[in-house]
Amino acid sequence: MTHGEATAEFESRLNDVAASTEGLLDRLLGSAPLPGETARPPRFLEAMRYASLGGGKRLRPFLLIETARLFGVENEGVLRAAAALEMIHCYSLVHDDLPALDNDDLRRGRPTTHKAFDEATAILVGDGLLTYAFDVTADPATHADPGIRVELVLSLARAAGLGGMIGGQVLDLEAERAPEAHKPEAVIKLQAMKTGALLHYAVKAGAILGKADAAAKAALSDYGHALGAAFQVADDILDVESDEAALGKRAGKDADRNKATLVAALGLEAARERRDKLSAAAIAALDSFPQGAKAIVLKEAARFVATRKS
Amino acid sequence: MTHGEATAEFESRLNDVAASTEGLLDRLLGSAPLPGETARPPRFLEAMRYASLGGGKRLRPFLLIETARLFGVENEGVLRAAAALEMIHCYSLVHDDLPALDNDDLRRGRPTTHKAFDEATAILVGDGLLTYAFDVTADPATHADPGIRVELVLSLARAAGLGGMIGGQVLDLEAERAPEAHKPEAVIKLQAMKTGALLHYAVKAGAILGKADAAAKAALSDYGHALGAAFQVADDILDVESDEAALGKRAGKDADRNKATLVAALGLEAARERRDKLSAAAIAALDSFPQGAKAIVLKEAARFVATRKS
Repeated sequence: MTHGEATAEFESRLNDVAASTEGLLDRLLGSAPLPGETARPPRFLEAMRYASLGGGKRLRPFLLIETARLFGVENEGVLRAAAALEMIHCYSLVHDDLPALDNDDLRRGRPTTHKAFDEATAILVGDGLLTYAFDVTADPATHADPGIRVELVLSLARAAGLGGMIGGQVLDLEAERAPEAHKPEAVIKLQAMKTGALLHYAVKAGAILGKADAAAKAALSDYGHALGAAFQVADDILDVESDEAALGKRAGKDADRNKATLVAALGLEAARERRDKLSAAAIAALDSFPQGAKAIVLKEAARFVATRKS
Repeated sequence: MTHGEATAEFESRLNDVAASTEGLLDRLLGSAPLPGETARPPRFLEAMRYASLGGGKRLRPFLLIETARLFGVENEGVLRAAAALEMIHCYSLVHDDLPALDNDDLRRGRPTTHKAFDEATAILVGDGLLTYAFDVTADPATHADPGIRVELVLSLARAAGLGGMIGGQVLDLEAERAPEAHKPEAVIKLQAMKTGALLHYAVKAGAILGKADAAAKAALSDYGHALGAAFQVADDILDVESDEAALGKRAGKDADRNKATLVAALGLEAARERRDKLSAAAIAALDSFPQGAKAIVLKEAARFVATRKS
């Protein structure tokens, strides 16, 4: 199979998964109440939908679904786990954009949730999406085996928590005032937590749902770590190289805010080299187990995160 | 057994459970990292501890632990589930106090988290406690049976989510502008969600961990609903009758903000009557199953929520 074919398959799969994720989020955030709920407050539901629907590459759901698919597991439960993960990602964007944090007005080319609604609503929307993600993951509809569901919940909480995404956001916040946080090693650690942990969970959850054996899980973990790191260096590079129209959010903002980035820590050329090495390492990790060696789409994803323009 | 003896036993149990909960929260929020975590950021950890330790009656942990104890179940896992529930309660207070929401400067007699630290930290502390609560609940240390753990996670997510606490907070926010939200039925629904759902979960989680049979679960559910409703009417009454020194937070603020309360909806006398009826209904619900009939401490809890002074 040539590189060109893989790309076409990759793009088609990425679009398909984005559409399925959008469809399920649309249903989960529909007006029909959950068991035990009375009518859902319409304006708030609209805000939750605004924060979750109509945008994004859905890269995290894609990685989760494609990883499970390596093991022949493809069903509504996998899609639910993926949609729950996307809710966590969306909540983090909503809170991150708040005036007290990054104070961003633009996200995915549209006003941020607190701009389109108000700050109180945006705080509660974030809390609501975070909570709902655990509801959707823990629900029997996600998997018949409670052991699988609780393993997903625990892994997700760890990836999103103090040792993962939130821990990374804290370091990010502190880095604006701490010179030592701008050293390459500190930035690598920050990024592994802030964006890496959730991308790593995507792959891990796919492996859990796919009942991968220990060797495949270890290789996929390496893949997830390398891909997550590549993704964030690429993000730092894009912030310097791209413009607002392509990004759908303000460009050049990292330097304005003295954010700890690998471009600042290493220089642009070394950052590009690191990105490409990480992308290659992710691909190489897949070659160490039978299903992984044939994982054209996941390999293409590792190239995609390094070469994307937005 | 006389009323006086029950009261002494109740107070002693309440203090014991508060101390145990405090002890476990102190350990869970200690500086030792969780598996997968690197060093915990010290200032942020201090803020999470500030938001969780050194205050509160720990009523929710108490109800959870006492309910499980009815069925002879008393162990570290029960305490973990209780501490996780308290984290959810504490996160909700931190976010509720934010300038964009209730804009409160005082909580439990101390500056609120965003006042003692800053707004960005308070938002992330809330997110961190919410996430950590699911981590602690889903962890194998809470119960050997993954089916029990995932049932707890799902029930907790529902109680804290759109159909529970968050849904109630949204209605509360909207009520400040909506005259129809101040009618008694609307206020009762709002309160059942905003504070009732988490108190109800406390009892439900105790019943799950105690492996209560269906009849006992149904009776405990009635107890939890009645107790939760009594608690909130009592709160509305306290806001009118008490002063800041006794409450540890600003008094009279409900009326200032046009909050939907049952005192405003029913009048003070009818609110008191409703509170006492709900307290009696909670106690009566326990009499319908063998362990419940002997539940001196839980019965006393139903009296306590109605008669407390803070």
